[in-house]
Amino acid sequence: MSRSFNVAVAGATGAVGHEMIKILEERAFPVKSLKLLASPNSEGKTLEFHGKHIPVEVLREDSFAGIEIALFSAGGDRSKQFAPHAAKAGAVVIDNSSAWRMDPQVPLVVPEVNAHAIKAHKGIIANPNCSTIQMVVALNPLHKAAKIKRVVVSTYQSVSGAGQKGIDELSAQIRSLFSFQGTEKKAFPHTIAFNCLPQIDVFEPSGYTKEEMKMVNETRKIMETPEMPLSATTVRVPVFYCHSESVNVEFEKDLSPDEARKILRNAPGVEVVDDPEKGEYPMALEAAGKDAVFVGRIRRDDSVKHGLNLWIVSDNLRKGAALNAVQIAEELIKPL
Amino acid sequence: MSRSFNVAVAGATGAVGHEMIKILEERAFPVKSLKLLASPNSEGKTLEFHGKHIPVEVLREDSFAGIEIALFSAGGDRSKQFAPHAAKAGAVVIDNSSAWRMDPQVPLVVPEVNAHAIKAHKGIIANPNCSTIQMVVALNPLHKAAKIKRVVVSTYQSVSGAGQKGIDELSAQIRSLFSFQGTEKKAFPHTIAFNCLPQIDVFEPSGYTKEEMKMVNETRKIMETPEMPLSATTVRVPVFYCHSESVNVEFEKDLSPDEARKILRNAPGVEVVDDPEKGEYPMALEAAGKDAVFVGRIRRDDSVKHGLNLWIVSDNLRKGAALNAVQIAEELIKPL
Repeated sequence: MSRSFNVAVAGATGAVGHEMIKILEERAFPVKSLKLLASPNSEGKTLEFHGKHIPVEVLREDSFAGIEIALFSAGGDRSKQFAPHAAKAGAVVIDNSSAWRMDPQVPLVVPEVNAHAIKAHKGIIANPNCSTIQMVVALNPLHKAAKIKRVVVSTYQSVSGAGQKGIDELSAQIRSLFSFQGTEKKAFPHTIAFNCLPQIDVFEPSGYTKEEMKMVNETRKIMETPEMPLSATTVRVPVFYCHSESVNVEFEKDLSPDEARKILRNAPGVEVVDDPEKGEYPMALEAAGKDAVFVGRIRRDDSVKHGLNLWIVSDNLRKGAALNAVQIAEELIKPL
Repeated sequence: MSRSFNVAVAGATGAVGHEMIKILEERAFPVKSLKLLASPNSEGKTLEFHGKHIPVEVLREDSFAGIEIALFSAGGDRSKQFAPHAAKAGAVVIDNSSAWRMDPQVPLVVPEVNAHAIKAHKGIIANPNCSTIQMVVALNPLHKAAKIKRVVVSTYQSVSGAGQKGIDELSAQIRSLFSFQGTEKKAFPHTIAFNCLPQIDVFEPSGYTKEEMKMVNETRKIMETPEMPLSATTVRVPVFYCHSESVNVEFEKDLSPDEARKILRNAPGVEVVDDPEKGEYPMALEAAGKDAVFVGRIRRDDSVKHGLNLWIVSDNLRKGAALNAVQIAEELIKPL
């Protein structure tokens, strides 16, 4: 008989936490017990898992006795505070925040790309940033085939990347604007309804946002290409779910669009949607709720030697967060 | 006493036509008489100009007797049919459609960039594509300073780029979705509400859309850089007004962000909005109804030698269409 595990979800009431619980259920992850943890605000709530209503408990340093796998999506500060306690109590933490991602002691994992890195964990494994995950799932197989020389990416990121409060804010702003009222801004620095904001997270002195630098640094760590030239512009758009990315790639060797399509059709986690004449290409509204990273608009970029343009779309709450975390947990429990 | 002119606006009832009439008034263009022309559907309508209600007449081949300047925004097919008749009748046509733009006999003009090209006209002058205009206004002064080697652009284009029907469709779709009803699609190939569509105009066999090839070919013609490497991905986003562009530029010579800002501050038609720490960068909602091309997020791209990233936003109905057309008319009537 195969084993089952004592699992905790920290940040269970957030947008990603909800999705983690749903995905554990959907994928029939072998859960012996499920502990749901959140901030004191959520005390008294219950959440459903396999038909049972599970009470949400307050996340504390001593919450993790007996827990074997702790999925964290409670924000960077709480991860920094609580993840080490969970690890000390014997759990393996899979953390969705940015707190541990660039720590050299912590593997940063997208199972389709670097599952092998999991082995080196010391109690904490980091789940990458949403916009990074979907890009590396598509780029890694092409890199193996023709070696990437440079990447230029511009993103079209949905408001759910800022959590439930981002979803609520776009919805509230649209209702206000359609009834001729002003908008309130809390989740985003400016009105997001009917606007594009070229700012996700805060700015660094270089003029890049932290989100942009996450795409650069996390991609290099996951793909084990520490010097790979990559330039990112990350933009919030008035879309509820899924991130879209316009990705321009320069390769060392020639790779035709047909070859790229063939490689991507055989790549784990990727679905090629690329018949533009029939109006078929990846779109946020189509990708929502799905597991794959969708790639299309694959075409030669003749402005450079060995260039391709790609359009990459995925559900930021699923593959970009909760699904990837659960996939890491699945790798972790695979028998040796 | 300075002269005034007999002006016609063909396509007067469309989104750009409206804007043309408004801008002729705002800028006190010396109009002696204004003739408003549109399809038979609009017969009987009147439009206001300087407080007077002017009846809309049906656009016909013989509509242009006595007209000196004809601003056209009636679509490519009508331009192809009617512009030659207007020119034959002695008018100078300034045409906003794509019908004549790549004709070697027809100047394609952005006054800040190539006003000198107007002189060579043979009765028709073409107004470039909206996404092209705002990009060349920002790129040309940088090109003069450091010579552009390559451009990679991804656009975030508003629904008004598809005219009044695009505006109506986004609005109707949002109302439907917020009342749990299905969406109708006419102006766009897929639902645009809460979605990003990596398709503007139709696809060519190369896998690029016509909109993307317009950005490549028109930019080269306007900047007189027939070989300039440029790769475009054009995307429709659920924004009503203004196009945003993420532009990655590689130069022959080094150009620091500070130098670029200085050059752009002195460039005609450009406004630099670039203090990200204070949350100041160009945004669609802020640019709407304004004349300038707004440039910000100017920063080094370290993934390439001599690279800069820019974020360029402008009102696609104004500088991207109607304003640029009226500016061409202003150049045209300048005394020698």
